This record gives sequence, C-alpha cells and structure tokens, in this order.
Amino acid sequence: MTATPNLSSVQAAARLIKGKAHITPVLTSTTLSTILGPEPITNEPRHLFFKCENFQKVGAFKFRGACNAVFRLPEDAAAKGVVTHSSGNHAQALALAARMRNIPCYVVMPSNAPQVKKAAVKGYGAEIIECEPNLEARETTSQRVLAETGGTFIHPYNHPDVISGQGTLCLELLQQAEEMGSPLDALIVPVGGGGMLSGCIVAGKGLRPDLRIFAAEPEGADDCARSFAAKEWIPQTSPNTIADGLLTSTGEIAWPLIRDNCEDILTVSEQQIIDAMRLVFERMKLVIEPSSAVGVAAALYSEGFTKLEGIKNVGVVLCGGNVNLDQLPWNAAQ
Amino acid sequence: MTATPNLSSVQAAARLIKGKAHITPVLTSTTLSTILGPEPITNEPRHLFFKCENFQKVGAFKFRGACNAVFRLPEDAAAKGVVTHSSGNHAQALALAARMRNIPCYVVMPSNAPQVKKAAVKGYGAEIIECEPNLEARETTSQRVLAETGGTFIHPYNHPDVISGQGTLCLELLQQAEEMGSPLDALIVPVGGGGMLSGCIVAGKGLRPDLRIFAAEPEGADDCARSFAAKEWIPQTSPNTIADGLLTSTGEIAWPLIRDNCEDILTVSEQQIIDAMRLVFERMKLVIEPSSAVGVAAALYSEGFTKLEGIKNVGVVLCGGNVNLDQLPWNAAQ
Repeated sequence: MTATPNLSSVQAAARLIKGKAHITPVLTSTTLSTILGPEPITNEPRHLFFKCENFQKVGAFKFRGACNAVFRLPEDAAAKGVVTHSSGNHAQALALAARMRNIPCYVVMPSNAPQVKKAAVKGYGAEIIECEPNLEARETTSQRVLAETGGTFIHPYNHPDVISGQGTLCLELLQQAEEMGSPLDALIVPVGGGGMLSGCIVAGKGLRPDLRIFAAEPEGADDCARSFAAKEWIPQTSPNTIADGLLTSTGEIAWPLIRDNCEDILTVSEQQIIDAMRLVFERMKLVIEPSSAVGVAAALYSEGFTKLEGIKNVGVVLCGGNVNLDQLPWNAAQ
Repeated sequence: MTATPNLSSVQAAARLIKGKAHITPVLTSTTLSTILGPEPITNEPRHLFFKCENFQKVGAFKFRGACNAVFRLPEDAAAKGVVTHSSGNHAQALALAARMRNIPCYVVMPSNAPQVKKAAVKGYGAEIIECEPNLEARETTSQRVLAETGGTFIHPYNHPDVISGQGTLCLELLQQAEEMGSPLDALIVPVGGGGMLSGCIVAGKGLRPDLRIFAAEPEGADDCARSFAAKEWIPQTSPNTIADGLLTSTGEIAWPLIRDNCEDILTVSEQQIIDAMRLVFERMKLVIEPSSAVGVAAALYSEGFTKLEGIKNVGVVLCGGNVNLDQLPWNAAQ
C-alpha cells in the first residue's frame, strides 16, 4: 500500500494496469458544447471533452482502482484473497481484478441487495457473504471474513492504491486532449467518496498545476459542498438522489486533497441530473448512469461554472454506465 | 450524378465529405465476441468490430450519402436547392447537408408524421411540405415542389451519389480494423432500401475481393432475403417490424449489386432484435436504434452466420442511434 497517493503512484498504477484496464475514448459533442456556449468575456467557443469510463471494464472507472490494488499486493498476501463490502460497481470491479490475478475475492453484501447485483458479482467468480442490512453487521461480518481468510481489505475509495488507480483516468484524459490539439483548462469530476476526484487531483495538479478542478455533486447528497464551504469535514446523512454512486460521505484520504485543490464544488438538482442524462442518451448516443450525468449537469447548468472566465476546454468524466434500463428516470418520472 | 457507384466513386465521396462527416470510431466488446464464440472448426476466438454510425452527424450513416449528394451538385443546380420525401433519418441528413452548403432544402412529409420528426427537420433549416399520407400524394407533391423550385431530387437510397457516400463507412471500417491488427474476414450490414449495403459492397469488394459480405434483415421485412433466394427482385409489402429504418423494398440500383456480391441474407426475429438491442445498451453502453440491432442479432444469433467456417474478424455496422427513449422495446414488451 502506498502511504499517500501522488503523481508518481498514479503513474506507477498506469504502468501496472496497462493492458488490463481499457484506455477509454474521449468523445466530443457539438450539441452539448453549444449548450454550454461561449466564454462569457472573450465570446470564444468552449469545448467539452467526455472521458468515457462507461466503456471501462465492468462499466465504470472503479475497475482502475480495484485492479491497481489487487495487482500491487505481494504474492503471499494476494494468495489469501481480497475482501470488500459493496453492493455497487466496486464489488464487480474487485471480483474481476481478483479473477484476473486468479486469487479469491470475498464480498460482504446486505441480504437485501438486488439479485441482479449479486448475480453480477458471482458471475465474476467472487464469493458473496450476506449480512443484515445495517452498518454494524457489515463491519462485524467483514472483520470475521478477514480473520477467517487472512485476506486483504480493499476499501471502495478510502485506500491509497484505489485512489492512485482512479487517477489514471486523468493521466489519459489530459494526454488525449493534448493529442486532440485542445489542452484542458478545467476538469469536472463527480464526487461521492472522493476516490476518483482525489485521484484526478493528484494526477491532474501533479502534471498541470494550473488545471482548474471542479467537483460535481447532487444537491441531495451535498456533504462535500457543505464541507468545502465550512472548510471542515461534514458527513453525509440521509442522502436523497438518483445518483446512487454518490451517496456516501467524502473519505478521509480524499478530503484534505479536495479541500486544498478544488476550485469549487458544483451542486445540481435532480431535474438537472435527469435532463443531462437524457441529453447524453439522445444526442451522444451513450448509456450513462445518473452519477455520470451529475458531471454533465454541472458543466451545462451550474452557473457557478458556466459564468466563469478564462475556460475554453473542459474535461468531464462520464464515470459509469451501469443503469437499470427497465427504470430510466424520465420514464419513472412520468 | 455518377452513373454507377464503384470503388472510385466511393473514394471520391470520402475525399468530398472529409471534415464534414465524422470519422466514426470502431468499438469492440469482449462480452459480445464471447457470445458469438469461437470458429466452429479451428476453435479460434472470433472478434466483432462495431462501426459506430450512431455517433455520425444526425445520429445515423444517412448523413454520409446526403452530404456527398449535396456537395457534388454543380453550383447552379445547388442554388435551386434539394428535394426529398422522407420522415426518417434521410430527411434530417439532407437538411443538415443543405444547411452546410447554404442551399434550400424541401422535405415532403405525410401530414401525420410525428411532430418530433418535423421539428428535427425544421431545426436544421429545411422547409417541410405536407401531403396526404399516401404514395400518390407523396409523388404528386414531390413533382410539384420540384417543378416550382427547379431543385434536385435526392432519393433516400436509390441514388448513386447517396450510395457512394454510404460506402465511405466501409472504407473507414476496413482501414480501422487493419490498424487494430485485425483485418476483417466478414462484414454484416443491415438492409432496407440497400443504399448502405450496396455502398459497402462496391467499397468492400473493390478493395478486398475476398471480403465476405452479409446482409441482415428482420423476418418481418424480408423482401431482400426472399429476392436473394429467388434470384429475382420481390417487393416488400406490409412490413411488420420494430426496425423502422428497414421497412422499404430493395432499391433498383442496389439489387443487382446485392444479388451478385452478398454471400447470404441473414434474417432475425423481433425477439432477437430486442435482445441484441438491450445487450448493446447494457454491455456496450451504446444507444442504438432497432435497425442497428438487426446486424448485431444476425452476428450473434443467426445460425446461417454463427456456424460458418473460416471467419475470425467480423465487422458489424451500427447504422444509427435515433430511438424513442420513452418507448424502448423491452419496456413496451412488458
């Protein structure tokens, strides 16, 4: 485990996961860039560059961090397997990374987790250990599994190797934008636990200290925005948003990096999330999950961003594409 | 207007539309290639290469042909504008191409066409002329508009410049697959009027006479398959399929090219179309229209294809992504 994530730990992660994780494409959209509109003072057109982590393995950026954490384990530790608690993208990501290294993976999941999520994790060969759906049972069960297996716990976001892995998406994006002749001025990253955001911070600021980094957060789970305003960590209680990847409190490792390096935390409403999600489906022909739409909504609709001066090229991370196609939010809303 | 489309007219089209149409990406999917499975004799893995025309301007390959036809017009003819009848992707494609050349565009549409389609065409600056929803009214009205404006009629598919334009997608795909180290052995193209298929035939067979070309068609609109079996042109009557881009009869120019060059016409059921469409949404995170899913379904489920020997790398054209997100077929089917 790296002590603290930094540019060189992200670069090491990029070398380690090369050929295991996808180098995801960066797509543009004239329609969406036109909706953002020109820079308010110079009137120069602004351009959006979408990093398509919905095309990543398991359908989300989470595979980068899980893959880095699994492949950094020494042989003897790896042989005993990895353990996590998650019912979301991290569980699938860790299960796949463990299968690629041919080591055991144990996932603690609440007994009421959707059958489809259990099936997905089992499909990657992991063992599921069910627990009562509360925080205490989750912790107790995780501790028991760790004791019984001697495995290594891989936290979904509060883990330096996971953070370094997530940061690799920012290394790629900066380089891809350069190659497209459009070096980025700003980057917008959705924030939940902050693993992806803090990874992008150490990578982005490490390479380009002048890069302006913004977090995007739902109004219904705005602990990071409130923490940022107060300059002190505030936990998330009772989140209420369709962006189910962003419900959690900001992690301990991520928080000081966010506090010291983000220019702003942009919040968006549920309707803005739904509008942005539909826009990406309709105009970009991409399937994204609501958490991805939070970043798009911030870029298009948040005046805290759209009215800023001096920004021409904007990176937006589409963090994942795992959405229930039977209940798309514009249908549910009708 | 070129007399008959051929490799050199497609290559000329590629030069003409360069910078106007997108060079669309080619994506792969381990999941979908695994569903196709290995070559039946050698047991070597087979790989699918998806040409993403859903990312093309106006969301469909149609822009290539319309753009080529519009920009090939001599100045004096162009100044009088272009005319078509269509309520689908061709109308939007022609409207955008005309706007890019700054010439008038007149679209004859049945009065009962969906409001959203009229709005899209108007949004690109074209003038809509409504007619009674029958074939005779459509013809009479088109003739009247042509007489009044002196414009040039651009047929949606039975037009050599349109066919040559569509063929440019095949030039790109063959080159992209080569660059990925996987030259294609076979190509699967959905067929409706046959503009795209015949364009891909003249481009593909022109460059690579050994390329095996297959058409994909819904069972509910299988005129091309029946024509191919009978070796004589049979029109489509009463089509019944969700693949609304493939309802029409094979065009006159396309038919002999298809008859003489396709290895087979693969037909797929409505359920296979829906299954393939959902699979592409879920696993590839791409929004495609049912017509695109017809090609995917043929590649994955048609035994007339999957049991063939000697094929390793398969190109599949995702022809468009314009679908009503309020009525996705798996929801409608419930």
